[in-house]
Amino acid sequence: MESYRGFLALLMSALPVGFLSVLFTLIWVLHYREGLGWDGSSLEFNWHPVLAVTGFIFIQGIAIIVYRLPWTWKCSKFLMKSIHAGLNGVATILAVIALVAVFDFHNAQSIPNMYSLHSWVGLAAVICYVLQLFTGFFIFLLPWAPPSLREFIMPIHVYFGLFLFGTTIATALMGVTEKLIFVLKDPPYHSFPPEGVFVNTLGLLILLFGALIFWIVSRPQWKRPKEPDSTLLKSNCDTTERMEGDVAISSGNNTDRSDSELNNEGATRKRNSGLDDVGQRSTM
Amino acid sequence: MESYRGFLALLMSALPVGFLSVLFTLIWVLHYREGLGWDGSSLEFNWHPVLAVTGFIFIQGIAIIVYRLPWTWKCSKFLMKSIHAGLNGVATILAVIALVAVFDFHNAQSIPNMYSLHSWVGLAAVICYVLQLFTGFFIFLLPWAPPSLREFIMPIHVYFGLFLFGTTIATALMGVTEKLIFVLKDPPYHSFPPEGVFVNTLGLLILLFGALIFWIVSRPQWKRPKEPDSTLLKSNCDTTERMEGDVAISSGNNTDRSDSELNNEGATRKRNSGLDDVGQRSTM
Repeated sequence: MESYRGFLALLMSALPVGFLSVLFTLIWVLHYREGLGWDGSSLEFNWHPVLAVTGFIFIQGIAIIVYRLPWTWKCSKFLMKSIHAGLNGVATILAVIALVAVFDFHNAQSIPNMYSLHSWVGLAAVICYVLQLFTGFFIFLLPWAPPSLREFIMPIHVYFGLFLFGTTIATALMGVTEKLIFVLKDPPYHSFPPEGVFVNTLGLLILLFGALIFWIVSRPQWKRPKEPDSTLLKSNCDTTERMEGDVAISSGNNTDRSDSELNNEGATRKRNSGLDDVGQRSTM
Repeated sequence: MESYRGFLALLMSALPVGFLSVLFTLIWVLHYREGLGWDGSSLEFNWHPVLAVTGFIFIQGIAIIVYRLPWTWKCSKFLMKSIHAGLNGVATILAVIALVAVFDFHNAQSIPNMYSLHSWVGLAAVICYVLQLFTGFFIFLLPWAPPSLREFIMPIHVYFGLFLFGTTIATALMGVTEKLIFVLKDPPYHSFPPEGVFVNTLGLLILLFGALIFWIVSRPQWKRPKEPDSTLLKSNCDTTERMEGDVAISSGNNTDRSDSELNNEGATRKRNSGLDDVGQRSTM
């Protein structure tokens, strides 16, 4: 119960910080910049930070911790994988539109593309994110990948997911830095204008959101309980349903028994409902 | 053996990438910029990236993985803690001198301090790093902290160490971004001058070094083997010595028995020498 309260406290810290990051980005472009549009001007550029922070940071962060919400543990693993993939899919779409906005703006204004470190790391992150999404879809969501392949890929999938999230945050901080230097001329950035202080604070909020997500996702006691030898039959949240086995985390060799009944699932869930340590498993 | 080769391959990738990062920083300031000096000019500023990348990134990265070097597992935990603390101490000193260099340069050139997001995050990272160093010294290196306190602090210590390392990398990427925008005027940054491409590559090297360190430190099979109920008596690398217990990772309640002999230590080491999974433990 104490651990559950700790989780809720962290989640209730992360969500408002994430919301505030999105809100600060909107206030930045709507109040301090010229607003939003799709006409090749700076109004179109402004979609870049809005969509990047909303999709590539906030939604990606939620996608990372979605398996850890205790009230979803009664839902099938397949449903949670679908939600995880869906959130990452939405994040990908928003990130791609964010890229289109900035390329479109650059081309309309005859500004060269892809010269800054922000653009190099950012484009690489989006490409890797798309690859990660497709790999996850074909290997973990579709039922055809053999358990041995899933088991081999899972730690890589988890590591790259977290690394890409950290890289995305670093990219956002670089983006904030270069945009403020470019646009704050009179008064200049170094004279502490309100926009500079406000957007620096946005940078700190993004960093804090990342810190909270990394803390939530790295605590073994908040991991979704293990479901050995279980099999996908339904995708709703019925506690008595039979479940898909998480082949990547199973310690046994029977993860491909496609119709086996998970008779001890209720007991497993009950045992794990106290958020006992499940730190050996490799999925989030 | 296969796992050991995998560890060596990763280490032999991380070290050259780290060295290259330092080398690229030196080439940047010595070849593309004006060189190094301590006279309030840009020569003094140039110590900032050199010391930050050398100390705050490369040495900090090595300090993070030092427990994982298999050939140090015969050394006492106290010796390894001392090396870990010593490396972090050196990193702190270099980071503080890097800060002095940039403040000195700003003051001599009448440039305001602490207006950019890079400076906000960077100063916060150095302050937190110093606090982390002192906390680690008093709680884990000195013998007076009760086991319960060590056990409570250890996961926080590990998490903040890794979070600060990630934050340091993000700070470096921001610093690279703002410096290139400030100094590349003719030809400008957006015309792809050699210095811009070279220092962008430095940014990628720093990111890659971070990626390799995070991979090495997050694999459970490469963790230093557990030494239950052991006690500090010596600090050399004798395999038959008695060792300090890692109270933070011990599952028992006998970690404060200051003179207990670890009779089964040899067997424990032998058992663990195959790099078996020790993922439940919270130390690096």
